[in-house]
Amino acid sequence: MLGNFSYSNPTKLYFGEESLSFLNEELPKYGDKVLLVYGGGSIKQTGLYDEIMQILAENGKQVFEDAGVMPNPTVEKLTEGCQIAKDNDVDFILAVGGGSVCDYAKAVSASAFCEEDPWEKYFIRKEAVDNPIIPLGCVLTMVGTGSEMNGGSVITNTTTTQKIGRVFGEDVFPKFSILNPVLTYTVPKQQMVAGFFDIMSHILEQYFSNEDDNTSDYIMEGLLKSLIHSSKIALENPTDYEARSNIMWTATWALNTLVAKGKSTDWMVHMIGQSIGAYTDATHGMTLSAISLPYYRLILPAGLAKFKRYAINVWGVNPEGKTDEQVALEGLSEMEHYMRTLGLVLNIKELGATPDMLEGIVAGSFITKGGYKVLTKEDIMSVLIESMNQ
Amino acid sequence: MLGNFSYSNPTKLYFGEESLSFLNEELPKYGDKVLLVYGGGSIKQTGLYDEIMQILAENGKQVFEDAGVMPNPTVEKLTEGCQIAKDNDVDFILAVGGGSVCDYAKAVSASAFCEEDPWEKYFIRKEAVDNPIIPLGCVLTMVGTGSEMNGGSVITNTTTTQKIGRVFGEDVFPKFSILNPVLTYTVPKQQMVAGFFDIMSHILEQYFSNEDDNTSDYIMEGLLKSLIHSSKIALENPTDYEARSNIMWTATWALNTLVAKGKSTDWMVHMIGQSIGAYTDATHGMTLSAISLPYYRLILPAGLAKFKRYAINVWGVNPEGKTDEQVALEGLSEMEHYMRTLGLVLNIKELGATPDMLEGIVAGSFITKGGYKVLTKEDIMSVLIESMNQ
Repeated sequence: MLGNFSYSNPTKLYFGEESLSFLNEELPKYGDKVLLVYGGGSIKQTGLYDEIMQILAENGKQVFEDAGVMPNPTVEKLTEGCQIAKDNDVDFILAVGGGSVCDYAKAVSASAFCEEDPWEKYFIRKEAVDNPIIPLGCVLTMVGTGSEMNGGSVITNTTTTQKIGRVFGEDVFPKFSILNPVLTYTVPKQQMVAGFFDIMSHILEQYFSNEDDNTSDYIMEGLLKSLIHSSKIALENPTDYEARSNIMWTATWALNTLVAKGKSTDWMVHMIGQSIGAYTDATHGMTLSAISLPYYRLILPAGLAKFKRYAINVWGVNPEGKTDEQVALEGLSEMEHYMRTLGLVLNIKELGATPDMLEGIVAGSFITKGGYKVLTKEDIMSVLIESMNQ
Repeated sequence: MLGNFSYSNPTKLYFGEESLSFLNEELPKYGDKVLLVYGGGSIKQTGLYDEIMQILAENGKQVFEDAGVMPNPTVEKLTEGCQIAKDNDVDFILAVGGGSVCDYAKAVSASAFCEEDPWEKYFIRKEAVDNPIIPLGCVLTMVGTGSEMNGGSVITNTTTTQKIGRVFGEDVFPKFSILNPVLTYTVPKQQMVAGFFDIMSHILEQYFSNEDDNTSDYIMEGLLKSLIHSSKIALENPTDYEARSNIMWTATWALNTLVAKGKSTDWMVHMIGQSIGAYTDATHGMTLSAISLPYYRLILPAGLAKFKRYAINVWGVNPEGKTDEQVALEGLSEMEHYMRTLGLVLNIKELGATPDMLEGIVAGSFITKGGYKVLTKEDIMSVLIESMNQ
C-alpha cells in the first residue's frame, strides 16, 4: 500500500429483490418536497415509475419531476434541472435510472444553489462545493458506472464538444442507493454488455498502475474473475438472478474508491472514451471497449510485469515456456476473445467516429499521469487509428 | 448474492506512516474528557504513549486512563473500565492497542451507562444497546482482528469459563481508526503470526459456506492470496513496509462486514477457539490455528466443491488427473505447509489444553449453523483430539 490515505464511504446500500421497500425507511429522514429525476421514460413502461410514485405518496411527499435525462447529460439539461430544484426549493432528490441519471442527479444536487455557472466552477475549475447541497438517493435500473456509491459525475458541453468528469466529495455521495438486480433485467442487450465492459474498464484503470504487491490489486483480480464468470452466464440468460446480482455488486465495488486505495490510477481509457462520446454521443461503455485493446497493447511494454500477472491471474494463461511478453499478449488475446463473445464494439467507426473527428478527439482527451506511460498526442492518435482498423 | 441485505460502514480509516497526525482532525469533534484505554504498557516502551499524550494535551483534553487490558479481557476488567468512564463522565474513548484493546473499548463504550449487568444484557442475552454510547476512536498497534472497523467485541468470564463474542451495531463501531503499519513492527513474532492466522481464519469462516458463485468469494480469494504473499515476506523481514501495510489493510477488509454480504457464514472455528481460550487464556489466533485443519478435514466432504475451488484458486493446486477429493485435500496440505512455515501452533496441548479440559471445551463451544455441516458434540470432541495428535 503506497503513501498515506483515508477511507470512508457514507452511502448506505440496500440490495436484493425486496430492496425497493427500504425507500419507506429512508424517505422520512428528509423534507416533503422531492425531485424525481429519471431518463427517457422506460421506467414508465416497466411499472417502476408507478411503484415509486405510490411509495412517495404514501410517505406524504410532494413530487416535482425532472425527466428526459439523456445518456450523455448536457450542460443545458443541468441548467434546467437546477432551475426546477431551486424554483421549488426541493428537500431531496430521488434519481431512478442508470449511471447517467445518477451522475446527472449529483450535478443537480451540488449545483442547484451554485451562484455562478456550475459548468465553469465545478466541472472546468473543479472547485470545492461551497453552496448548500440537496441530499440525494438513487434507485438503480442499470449497472456499470458505480455512480450509486461515489461522487462521480460526467456532464457534456455540446457547444465546446467537451465531456468532462468531476469527482465530488462525500457530501455529494448518494445518502443511500437501492440495488435490485431484477430491475436490470429489462435493459436491452447492447446496453447490458456496455455496462459489463464499463465495470471491467473501471477495474483495469485502477489495476494497471504501480509495481508493488498491493492488496487492492488482489481484490481487483477477484472482482474481474467474478465479472467474467457472471457476465458469460448473463449473456446466455439475462434473467439469471445469481449472475445479474453478482454483476451488480461487483459494479459497485469496482468504483466506490476502495480498490484505488494505496495506488496511483490511470483513467486514460476514460479520457479518450469521453472525448469520443462528446463527438459521437455513443454509449459510454462502448467508447471504452473500442479503444481498450489498442491502448493496452500500446502501453504493455511499459507495464510488462503487471500485464503478465493479469494474463495469468485473471485469464488463466499458462506461462510455461513463454516469454513475459508472450504471456502478457496472450492475456490481451483472451480479453479480446471475451469482448467479441459479449458483442462489444471494437471499432470507433461503428460508434459514428469519422476520420475528420480524430484531431478533435485527440485534442479533447485530457492526458493523465497515473498509469504506466504518459501518452503523447501522437500516441492517442495511434490508438484511435488502431481502433478503426480492428 | 443471496437474499436481501444492507451495507454501510460508518468508520473512517486513516492509513499510513503519517496517519497518527489525523488525531488532530478527529479529536476536536468530541468533548474534552478522554478515556485512554491500553494494554500491558508496551506503548510506553515504544514511545507511542508519550506521542499520543502530547497530541491529547495539544488538543486541550483532560485524560483519564484505563490501562492493563489483557489479551482475553475479563468481565471484572469491563466493570472497572465502565466505572472509570462513568465516574469521570468521559466524552470520548481512545483505544490504543490490538484487537483485545479495541474489542474491550467497544464493550466499555456500550456498557458504561448500562443500568443492568452488561455481561448478562449485552453478551449473554445480546440485547440492543438502549443506553447512551460513548464515542470511540482506535489507534492500532497489532493487526488481525479487524476490530478497527466493525462492532465485534469478545469478553471472557473466568468464573463461568465462558469467552463470548458480541457484534454491536453501527452506533458502537469506532468513529475512526488510525492504521499505521510501522506501529506493528514491534509486535513479537509469535503475536505477529498469530495475527496473520486470525486474518486467514476470519476469511475462511466466511468463505466456506454456500454453493453459489458469489462475488464475495472472489474478493476473499484475492484477500487470501494477498495475505499469503505478504505474510511470507513479513516472516523473513518484519520491517518490510509493503508487506506489513498490505497485511494491515487485508485484516481490516477481512472482517468489516463486506465479504459476508450475500452469504451465510460459519464461525465454528471461532466458537471452538474461544472455548479453548476461556480454559487456557491462549492467544486467540493460536487457538484458531490449532483446530482449523482438523475442522476443515472433518467438514470437507460436505463442502467438497468449495474446498476444491479453494485448493485451485488460492493455493494453485493443479487439478489435472486428480479426483475432486484429492484436489481438495492437497489444498489443505498446502495450507498446513504454510502454517508450519509461519510457526503456528497446531496442537492444543501446546496452548495448555489438557485431556481433563476437553469435556468443558466441548460444552462451551456454541454450535453455529451457517457452514457446510452442523457439528455434533462428538464432532467437536474429535476435532480437539485430532488437534492433540497433529
